[in-house]
Amino acid sequence: MSAGTGLNAVGLIRAKREGVELTPDQLHALLGAYLSGEVGDEQMAAFLMAVCWRGMSAPELSAWTGAMLGSGIRLDLAAAGRPTVDKHSTGGVGDKVSLVLVPLVAACGAAVPQMSGRGLGHTGGTLDKLEVIPGWQSELSPERIARQLREVGCVICAAGQELVPADRRLYALRDVTATVESIPLIASSIISKKVAEGTQALLLDVKVGSGAFMKDLTAAHALARTMMNLGAAYGVRTSAWLTPMDEPLGRAVGNAVELSEAIEALEGGGPEDLRRLVLEEAREMLRLARIEADPELALRDGRAATVFREMVLAQGGDPDAPLPRGDSLALVRAPAGGFLQGLDALAVGTAAWSLGAGRSRQGDPVSATAGVLCLVKPGEAVAEGEAVLELVGDNRAGLPAALAALEGAIRVGASRPPQQPVVMSRYPAN
Amino acid sequence: MSAGTGLNAVGLIRAKREGVELTPDQLHALLGAYLSGEVGDEQMAAFLMAVCWRGMSAPELSAWTGAMLGSGIRLDLAAAGRPTVDKHSTGGVGDKVSLVLVPLVAACGAAVPQMSGRGLGHTGGTLDKLEVIPGWQSELSPERIARQLREVGCVICAAGQELVPADRRLYALRDVTATVESIPLIASSIISKKVAEGTQALLLDVKVGSGAFMKDLTAAHALARTMMNLGAAYGVRTSAWLTPMDEPLGRAVGNAVELSEAIEALEGGGPEDLRRLVLEEAREMLRLARIEADPELALRDGRAATVFREMVLAQGGDPDAPLPRGDSLALVRAPAGGFLQGLDALAVGTAAWSLGAGRSRQGDPVSATAGVLCLVKPGEAVAEGEAVLELVGDNRAGLPAALAALEGAIRVGASRPPQQPVVMSRYPAN
Repeated sequence: MSAGTGLNAVGLIRAKREGVELTPDQLHALLGAYLSGEVGDEQMAAFLMAVCWRGMSAPELSAWTGAMLGSGIRLDLAAAGRPTVDKHSTGGVGDKVSLVLVPLVAACGAAVPQMSGRGLGHTGGTLDKLEVIPGWQSELSPERIARQLREVGCVICAAGQELVPADRRLYALRDVTATVESIPLIASSIISKKVAEGTQALLLDVKVGSGAFMKDLTAAHALARTMMNLGAAYGVRTSAWLTPMDEPLGRAVGNAVELSEAIEALEGGGPEDLRRLVLEEAREMLRLARIEADPELALRDGRAATVFREMVLAQGGDPDAPLPRGDSLALVRAPAGGFLQGLDALAVGTAAWSLGAGRSRQGDPVSATAGVLCLVKPGEAVAEGEAVLELVGDNRAGLPAALAALEGAIRVGASRPPQQPVVMSRYPAN
Repeated sequence: MSAGTGLNAVGLIRAKREGVELTPDQLHALLGAYLSGEVGDEQMAAFLMAVCWRGMSAPELSAWTGAMLGSGIRLDLAAAGRPTVDKHSTGGVGDKVSLVLVPLVAACGAAVPQMSGRGLGHTGGTLDKLEVIPGWQSELSPERIARQLREVGCVICAAGQELVPADRRLYALRDVTATVESIPLIASSIISKKVAEGTQALLLDVKVGSGAFMKDLTAAHALARTMMNLGAAYGVRTSAWLTPMDEPLGRAVGNAVELSEAIEALEGGGPEDLRRLVLEEAREMLRLARIEADPELALRDGRAATVFREMVLAQGGDPDAPLPRGDSLALVRAPAGGFLQGLDALAVGTAAWSLGAGRSRQGDPVSATAGVLCLVKPGEAVAEGEAVLELVGDNRAGLPAALAALEGAIRVGASRPPQQPVVMSRYPAN
């Protein structure tokens, strides 16, 4: 396996396994040999598990990220003619923030080049939500991205094949080998793609809680700090926030239902928790882009909604097409009266996924209409037997699993619970 | 990857990664799915690295070993008509003990069914040494093994394809993924094969020191205890010893040169350290087999040598064929006069390997004649400039590497060093 370049792949895996720090040259050689086929999937899988075990030092992580970056092209967004800033969320249940935030920040004068992903498991993907719009295209060439940024100010699209192809191979391997949950592997995957897309500034939203990928607060802090430092090392002004994900964000969880809620928010309405988070994040992104503007005004006066329409049109979508609606499949009712204390995000996300809103593996199709509506949100009063959740969709096959996932998800108590903060912690860009 | 049986391989890898104990059913299902091709090499590699990280509990190890055993047949040695006992060494430099011990213990009344291996890296393999004999065959059918045990009393042969085929696949994978050095993986590999070969009793020789696979004393103790308990769990009376491997065993390191030295020992001669270890191990094996006999007498009266000849003949070899001899390629001399304090086993093994006595990867050929002769052994007096090592073989290509490996390998001091114990620790069978 080590013929050809004379790379001792087994020795490098063993060194990582033993906690020895690898040199930048060694990490570049290992990833290069993997991409060329000299190092096999089984060797990279063992290496990745050893990284889960031993971690990576800051110099190792920077070198590994650089090797990933070197596998593809880096976009040059100078032609956008505006400061560039992007945002990345580690994913949550009902997290449709990008759909509102990206056009909003563009409406305030920045260029937002968001390369996004599809959902996996109980968290949805921004592209899946936009693909509900008839005609909308996620695949854009680098030239089209640059033109759209100049003309519209923002783009939400899939990361092209030419952007960090190493990440695509590594992610597929991590997905089947239980090596996804590793701070250096997560950080290098996210930051390499953001550096490659060419943004000058970046806000990272690390979700924490039952519905988040990161359930552990200590690990979430470490991930935020690691990504902030790694982004800075590559010249991207990077802020990293921790935000709560114990309950769904907004009232809608699914694809069409979230898109619909995002459009409400763009028009100045929408649920309060979504609106508050969008505005906080917009202000931070504008600060990072060094633009003075009031995002609240851009929601109120219709500029954000206009930019969203232009973005959809530019990507072949029909912003006036009616969104598909699913049937009401079932209601889940409050077990007692009082105030809703909690609505478990993981349970709601899993229910929506069971109904078809999410996928089990990469490449699976998702249902446009399947989802869960939160008729009552934590903090609101509820009567015993009142409907709290409505399950919607076109297909009843997943209903038993969805209802099972929701067992115990609704917590009711006598007193009004304290309001959750919008942001738990902030690591501001230097 | 988890289609078919519904096995959640990623979940099992993740559980092991998180230190969760797996159930016997889960471990059986995982190995079964790997052997059937449902679980890929990259998934098993990640699992094996997670085992290196988290280890295995005694119940996990027993179940994993059982799953490995279940992949093949178990020999029935009742037809041998004698108590069966075997020995396994974790491998060292100059370790030709089996060549002497197996016929010796058979000459004392036991049946010794030794399935052995080929060398890899700086440690030699018993089969490679016997293959120096013209005509000698390592591959025997189960029927031939049983007949030879009945008629000759011993066999040294390759483990057949039908014996623990899971180990062959796992070992090849571990070899390229730096997951060889894991106590539960080593223990399950060794013990599964010994249980499958059908021996009633087993002496394990865990080598410790620079020339051994296990360089760390604590890990060597843990391996010995783990294997003793695992053997006992499968009904094999198992003793485990720790023996030193800081200097080569005997004076010869290589294939033909070790075979030649082993024949000297079978005829009552040979180096003292080899003779002492062989006799100690023979006594323990006879104790395990519940046979009262004096192995020293069996060496002296020629019975051991006779059994060796019969074993070679039964496997198609010509015991009277002259052994090939290499040329003298170089001498390495004492840097000073005094007593030889140490002769680094790893350096000597690496030198022999560089000359062609060992292989870099499975399936490579080895040289019959290449090797290193220790003209002076630690504890013996030496004059400045006296030849301590002689490098032999047919090919000078590896000579610079061999000489480089031996830099600093010879330590000379003013006083005679204390004699090493033959056995460092003993874990006797219950």
